[in-house]
Amino acid sequence: MSSDCIFCAIVAGTGPADIVYTDEHIVGFLDIRPITVGHTLLVPRTHHTGLADLPAETGARLFAAGQRVAAAAKAALDADGINLALNDGKSAFQTVFHTHLHVVPRHSGDKLQFAKGLLTRRGGDRKSIAAALREELS
Amino acid sequence: MSSDCIFCAIVAGTGPADIVYTDEHIVGFLDIRPITVGHTLLVPRTHHTGLADLPAETGARLFAAGQRVAAAAKAALDADGINLALNDGKSAFQTVFHTHLHVVPRHSGDKLQFAKGLLTRRGGDRKSIAAALREELS
Repeated sequence: MSSDCIFCAIVAGTGPADIVYTDEHIVGFLDIRPITVGHTLLVPRTHHTGLADLPAETGARLFAAGQRVAAAAKAALDADGINLALNDGKSAFQTVFHTHLHVVPRHSGDKLQFAKGLLTRRGGDRKSIAAALREELS
Repeated sequence: MSSDCIFCAIVAGTGPADIVYTDEHIVGFLDIRPITVGHTLLVPRTHHTGLADLPAETGARLFAAGQRVAAAAKAALDADGINLALNDGKSAFQTVFHTHLHVVPRHSGDKLQFAKGLLTRRGGDRKSIAAALREELS
């Protein structure tokens, strides 16, 4: 755990977050600056800055959690597409240096919104969205 | 294997590709419409259309290969960032329905090029780029 890492704080339960998913190794919560409704971040419970220091086993667990949350977003939010993305390094748009996998629910015809969302971010009610995803995952 | 799938043809060795990476389960090759130089696609040898029918074990292997190719791109192409992305479904920009992981090498200051690349795609000499990545991975 890194003492000044906001994602470590969420994992430890001392930072606020709308938790979507937890397992022994991974925690998932809604992005506070969502590109689309239900935009979720999955993080290892252990602190790794990026791909280079992420153990392969942990990477595999991160991806597996991504698949599960993707399926839940399709069911709970009626998404018909999903982007999974991991941005590694400042030049690749990484802003929090606790490596994380984005799960971005998509809907047909939202292309323009998606492009706009990259600039303006899009909301929705986080409490109810997180609850719907949690219920689907439980 | 799906008989009309261009990625299955690459896996089978009957379709042309600049191969970057192979293991027992995964094949990697340069995207023919690259967003950045070294833009690589990783595919399972088995045909799965998307996240929903991708076995978790295969997903884990796909991600592990992504980490390896990411490290190779940093070393061989001097990339200082990487985007890993999996687009699942037409609304999420999936165009070939054999699920695949994008490995996109990034460089500081290329943001504009990256955005432009999403529209115009960017090249480089595929043979030499693939050779550099293969050497790093071998």
